[in-house]
Amino acid sequence: MPAYKAPLRDMQFVLHELLQTEQLYQQMPKYQENVSLELINQYLEVAADFCENELAPLNHIGDQQGCHLDKGKVTTPDGFKEAYQKYTELGFTSLTADTAYGGQGLPTLLRISISEMLCGSNWAWAMYQGLSHGAMRTIEHHGTEEQKQTYLTQLVSGKWTGTMCLTEAQAGSDLGLVRTKAEPNEDGSYSITGEKIFISAGEHDLTENIIHIVLARLPNAPAGTKGISLFIVPKFNVDEAGNLADRNKVVCSAIEHKMGIHGNATCVLNFDGAKGFLIGPEHRGLNCMFTFMNTARIGTAVQGVAASEISFQGALTYAKDRLAMRSLSGAKYPDKNADPIIVHPAVRTMLMTQKAFSEGGRALAYFLAQHADILEVSNNPEQQKLSDELLAFLTPIAKAFLTESGNESAKHGVQVFGGHGFIAEHGMEQIVRDARISTLYEGTTEIQALDLLARKVLKSGGKLLQNMIQLIEEFVEHHSGHTALIPYTEKLTELTKQWHGITQEISKKAKQNPEEIGAASVDYLYFSSYVVFAYLWARMAQVADEKLQAGTSDEQFYRAKLTTAKFFYQKLLIRTQTHLAAIRSGAESVMELEQNHFSF
Amino acid sequence: MPAYKAPLRDMQFVLHELLQTEQLYQQMPKYQENVSLELINQYLEVAADFCENELAPLNHIGDQQGCHLDKGKVTTPDGFKEAYQKYTELGFTSLTADTAYGGQGLPTLLRISISEMLCGSNWAWAMYQGLSHGAMRTIEHHGTEEQKQTYLTQLVSGKWTGTMCLTEAQAGSDLGLVRTKAEPNEDGSYSITGEKIFISAGEHDLTENIIHIVLARLPNAPAGTKGISLFIVPKFNVDEAGNLADRNKVVCSAIEHKMGIHGNATCVLNFDGAKGFLIGPEHRGLNCMFTFMNTARIGTAVQGVAASEISFQGALTYAKDRLAMRSLSGAKYPDKNADPIIVHPAVRTMLMTQKAFSEGGRALAYFLAQHADILEVSNNPEQQKLSDELLAFLTPIAKAFLTESGNESAKHGVQVFGGHGFIAEHGMEQIVRDARISTLYEGTTEIQALDLLARKVLKSGGKLLQNMIQLIEEFVEHHSGHTALIPYTEKLTELTKQWHGITQEISKKAKQNPEEIGAASVDYLYFSSYVVFAYLWARMAQVADEKLQAGTSDEQFYRAKLTTAKFFYQKLLIRTQTHLAAIRSGAESVMELEQNHFSF
Repeated sequence: MPAYKAPLRDMQFVLHELLQTEQLYQQMPKYQENVSLELINQYLEVAADFCENELAPLNHIGDQQGCHLDKGKVTTPDGFKEAYQKYTELGFTSLTADTAYGGQGLPTLLRISISEMLCGSNWAWAMYQGLSHGAMRTIEHHGTEEQKQTYLTQLVSGKWTGTMCLTEAQAGSDLGLVRTKAEPNEDGSYSITGEKIFISAGEHDLTENIIHIVLARLPNAPAGTKGISLFIVPKFNVDEAGNLADRNKVVCSAIEHKMGIHGNATCVLNFDGAKGFLIGPEHRGLNCMFTFMNTARIGTAVQGVAASEISFQGALTYAKDRLAMRSLSGAKYPDKNADPIIVHPAVRTMLMTQKAFSEGGRALAYFLAQHADILEVSNNPEQQKLSDELLAFLTPIAKAFLTESGNESAKHGVQVFGGHGFIAEHGMEQIVRDARISTLYEGTTEIQALDLLARKVLKSGGKLLQNMIQLIEEFVEHHSGHTALIPYTEKLTELTKQWHGITQEISKKAKQNPEEIGAASVDYLYFSSYVVFAYLWARMAQVADEKLQAGTSDEQFYRAKLTTAKFFYQKLLIRTQTHLAAIRSGAESVMELEQNHFSF
Repeated sequence: MPAYKAPLRDMQFVLHELLQTEQLYQQMPKYQENVSLELINQYLEVAADFCENELAPLNHIGDQQGCHLDKGKVTTPDGFKEAYQKYTELGFTSLTADTAYGGQGLPTLLRISISEMLCGSNWAWAMYQGLSHGAMRTIEHHGTEEQKQTYLTQLVSGKWTGTMCLTEAQAGSDLGLVRTKAEPNEDGSYSITGEKIFISAGEHDLTENIIHIVLARLPNAPAGTKGISLFIVPKFNVDEAGNLADRNKVVCSAIEHKMGIHGNATCVLNFDGAKGFLIGPEHRGLNCMFTFMNTARIGTAVQGVAASEISFQGALTYAKDRLAMRSLSGAKYPDKNADPIIVHPAVRTMLMTQKAFSEGGRALAYFLAQHADILEVSNNPEQQKLSDELLAFLTPIAKAFLTESGNESAKHGVQVFGGHGFIAEHGMEQIVRDARISTLYEGTTEIQALDLLARKVLKSGGKLLQNMIQLIEEFVEHHSGHTALIPYTEKLTELTKQWHGITQEISKKAKQNPEEIGAASVDYLYFSSYVVFAYLWARMAQVADEKLQAGTSDEQFYRAKLTTAKFFYQKLLIRTQTHLAAIRSGAESVMELEQNHFSF
């Protein structure tokens, strides 16, 4: 397995130098007292130590052993339970939760940074705590005081974990098709009946209780998405004193055999008149969930960054070590039998691509997490509004593009290893298998693309896009005198014009034929993603160049940043032009073949 | 698992309508009598039946069970041995071999077509017979008459199988680093000592004997690639009567745990003074192997086609069946709860991409196999020379691009299934895992790219490229009056100009800095591949349009062909422009970062 090294230096660069986290958070009352550069770094270092030394060694074991189901009980791989215990002792389960319920009230940005390390060192393990977070947010935002005291406090302490039970066999991307029923009982509770599939961490042996958040329909519910309500369904019922009572009627009947994330139990859960409690208003379950959909998706986005980072680390280490052939410009290590493969440009291109995706992705994920914090705690309504709109616009981009680029990086990681990349013991193929889930769950890439183009861009009349373009234009204007940045700012100006233009073209064509939106959506998402990356890479280049101008003891770090920015612009950003051409060619060739004539 | 259906209609289209196989082969003395349209179709139908009904049902089993090693013996998955028995009974092992040794003397083109079906239905199983083929070709071309009688006849009958033992732990892409030793014995045989890794089908229970073709160094061998010789090393020695004698000193000490192709045993073989027999001249082992490297690589290329085809079949079936959401242009099936996902343009784009890669890849692989036949048996030296040069030029393109596009198709196949694509029982993720090997073995994509640009294009002074461009220009000229083809021929003219221009640019830059070749190579390979596909798609469009003009009972097939050609040009061929821009941006940003500053 590639050893995992938490990329603390680059994380700190993004948090402190690019995003100026301390300065910004000091302006927000909630964080004024407890968020400082030192505190962030302390947390990161504790988490890095945990990830490098506790989680990473369990990563390959988890993949090999997988989870086992016996009579409704799931056994997780060796060491997973002990690692979870240690994780709760370190206080990481309570990081962002409300202090009134045992939380530490720290920013989402910190949680996302730590989450990157958890996923990078052990993706399957990280999901057990990740899903809990969704359950916590739901109860924190929509639960009654009693529900918070009963369930939230135990989730916050990590004593229990939580799940999100959305998907059913016939209802995945289209949650309007959910059939699970909730029938009211006389005591104010509900009887929940139905089958949920793909429930991550739906059953396991890490904790004594599991709190399921379940989407179900009340008897009088309207059809479709507007008739779904949310329920809390504990694995063990809880008595009035908060102790575990009888076993609730929810059973894990199967766990899935999957391509990857073997260490995480993906469960079929059967609810057979299980006792549940309504959370939030009737029929408004999906709306309730949307309140934290953005942060959940940033959580998935950062998994893509983690995949890019760990596959880069593995590939770089191998490329410096493995000897094969000579450099085309003459032997670089004539005393060795051959040169290390990092001398070969094709290998370097793959490594630089991984590096550009990893570092650019980190910048984007953290940038978004910061806006999630601003939205939540800022006392400046104008700032909040902008953050809200930026989040709405950028979340589908981050979710889709960081996971897709994470998959691309993982592919390169295998490729750099040659045939050895295909062998399990090197761990590079596991990254491919684990990362593959990320473009599928939490909304597929295609769903994100439609969300971006149809809902966010076109439905807002271009307003949400305009916000982003304005940010870019402000950057360009502000740095117009900075000659080192000219290649970047010129390109950004050109790209924002294209972005604006192509959006208008689609909007116009869509009026004739709505299929044009769907046909353009995925390419539009990629085009937009590369431009957003270009903005962040330009900002990173600006910071790096200023540091170098000012003089620094960390010169190599900043020089590498500038090279990577240049590489991104010259080798990756150019992909925008193919996406633009694909959009312009329209829906015709996509839609022409009749369904019945589509055959083999 | 997706059921496998042999794509006979499209295979016949390529063989008979596009490539006019009967007409062409009737001109070659060797095939005049035994190669007809009917004979080809008969073979294809028998093979299709075997693949659909014998191999496909073992595909998932093979993946789940894998191979097991116990005390040097490998057990293959349930049913593999029986299927192999049936395969030999059907006579498929002897297809292309020399009739003097029990072969049927049929064309490589037929073998490659059948190979596509074998790989599509059960990749891991197909490799057992595929590797035999390499051993057969080696002995047929370079063995003595005695070696042919002793070994080749048994390989041809399928009684024994063969392997190719090239790779060692330190020597993969760079075979010059091979260390295995061959020391002469007094009886004219050699003692082979060393460890080989990644030996596909190196040990198994399908046959009573295995014939290894081994790369090793004689005591006086020069260092590097010019000091490697080829040896025949049987698992069981063979006595003068041709019967099995004592066990030779070659032992399987381990089998690899891999990402995919679990049903094929990937072996570590230890040669400990094993008895071997020199084949071909001393020190010329790599040259001997190069004589059939092209056909071996076409064999891998067609595996990529198989991956595209089977992932397309699975995805299309699912897309017609799975219901989610409504078409953007209004419900298409208002009586159902939702529309089948094939109505959504983003899903269609993935399906059309798979279709374009599968059918285009088939055309390219078969086109090359036909040229391999021409090279081998034509009585027209000029025709042979052109085929030889086209093969040299197009083989790295086919090997790299058909396997890369096979991987892309497999990715789409999972994506169309959403979360269900990640689950083993649906079989879509197995295609991804199996196909992943194909861009790694038989020379990685990066090795193919360097072979294409450095060795084939630049070293020939552009001659090999010019042949291809000339083929395209002839097509364009010949069909200048064919108005339906104008969008294709115009584009082809533009692309050949770009192709020629960018090659000259690289050649010029390479004189200043040889790293420019490596930095351009992979993008150059992709650019070239899309243009070659564009040529074949234009030819297919021409055939389809002519059929439609003439009137046909199979109208839908030809209309689908035209739509797919259009889709390829509008949505995939445009990727050339990004590759062009990447090449133009040169080596600087790739090479700038010093090795020591490349870190995390």
